[in-house]
Amino acid sequence: MSSMKSEEMAKSTQLIDNEVFRAYATYTTIVLLKMMLMSLVTAYFRITRKAFVNPEDVASFGKGETAKKYLRTDPDVERVRRGHLNDLENIVPFVGIGLLYALSGPELSTALLHFRIFTGARILHTFAYLIPLPQPGRGLSWAVAYTVTISMAYKVLKTALYL
Amino acid sequence: MSSMKSEEMAKSTQLIDNEVFRAYATYTTIVLLKMMLMSLVTAYFRITRKAFVNPEDVASFGKGETAKKYLRTDPDVERVRRGHLNDLENIVPFVGIGLLYALSGPELSTALLHFRIFTGARILHTFAYLIPLPQPGRGLSWAVAYTVTISMAYKVLKTALYL
Amino acid sequence: MSSMKSEEMAKSTQLIDNEVFRAYATYTTIVLLKMMLMSLVTAYFRITRKAFVNPEDVASFGKGETAKKYLRTDPDVERVRRGHLNDLENIVPFVGIGLLYALSGPELSTALLHFRIFTGARILHTFAYLIPLPQPGRGLSWAVAYTVTISMAYKVLKTALYL
Repeated sequence: MSSMKSEEMAKSTQLIDNEVFRAYATYTTIVLLKMMLMSLVTAYFRITRKAFVNPEDVASFGKGETAKKYLRTDPDVERVRRGHLNDLENIVPFVGIGLLYALSGPELSTALLHFRIFTGARILHTFAYLIPLPQPGRGLSWAVAYTVTISMAYKVLKTALYL
Repeated sequence: MSSMKSEEMAKSTQLIDNEVFRAYATYTTIVLLKMMLMSLVTAYFRITRKAFVNPEDVASFGKGETAKKYLRTDPDVERVRRGHLNDLENIVPFVGIGLLYALSGPELSTALLHFRIFTGARILHTFAYLIPLPQPGRGLSWAVAYTVTISMAYKVLKTALYL
Repeated sequence: MSSMKSEEMAKSTQLIDNEVFRAYATYTTIVLLKMMLMSLVTAYFRITRKAFVNPEDVASFGKGETAKKYLRTDPDVERVRRGHLNDLENIVPFVGIGLLYALSGPELSTALLHFRIFTGARILHTFAYLIPLPQPGRGLSWAVAYTVTISMAYKVLKTALYL
């Protein structure tokens, strides 16, 4: 039992020793942490702009009308929330397709190129959204990350297609 | 080092050689690409309906009031966005639970049945949402995909339960 | 061919035999099922509060103005939807980073601690959002789950970093 367990442990750590998989793990973690950061940015803007959505969140500001005026939308808060949703829409496919791509046996250099461009483009996208930069800054950074994901999906389907 | 690396590479490609895993990779990629397509449909409707949300997106239409009138919501755009969010809510559980299901050693034919029905139902759901089809078209396609995911979750918990 | 296939099957089930991976599979499935439950809660409130968003969803209530009055937002429906979106924003990073964490060879007891606290905190978060509990109930449960994910991300980057 004990020896079987340690054997299994060894098996499971082998995947993380593979260089392509380690690169996938690194960039996926970075890009998911970046997405999580949007929650903190939202909270920051909600607090500094005093713009909340739940009555229980403004209860400490006083009772009745005093607190109610903070239940409002704010352009900066809404902007961060749109950036956060755009992250979900684009980072979820990267995480899912990227995992399959990493397991489809790509060249390390090709894989790194995909992961690095995607991660760089999504970080740029966030800056372009939050500053905001004039278009087509945000549009281009979105399109680059989108194209990288399509390229990985093509490799997965070419390698693994089983309908 | 070099031999260890190639051994690891071999290990990591074995997963993608497994037929159930290849089927999972195929249908997950298809369904994530379908979800990504919603971004393009949203962009198409935003441009044809001239309905944008960010001031920087309408800057090229002119200055001041001329451009401002395009900062508006449009029923078609909002409909696509609801379809996109519904995809996120349902495809994320499929990708996560489906991976664990594929690793839980199901029969190939049973796994294919799950993946195919889910994928078909979600494609139907998108058409039902965008055309739109009268209810219960959208509701039923949603329920079928939901039930498939529950069935996979049951198999995962039956096989792997470790609390 | 047949022997190769069964060998592959054996390989793919080995991962699910690993105790850390089984724990990951269990808690990921639980937390994704909990997220899926939000769809049913939304449907329940839409039906009991008669608050819908798609014209085709109210067609059975009658024609014209009779049905149109049910195309409205309701505070309870919106509250569940915010809880659902918050689940997506936080459970997606857990599923992605948690998988890499489970493959990074953590101690079983440490891994169980992470998975259990995250799952407990997110279940608490849902109750805090839906009841609703006074703050900082919801805020604290959110922060605990967030911190657990950061801790797993740290372990992944420490083990696998490959830039």
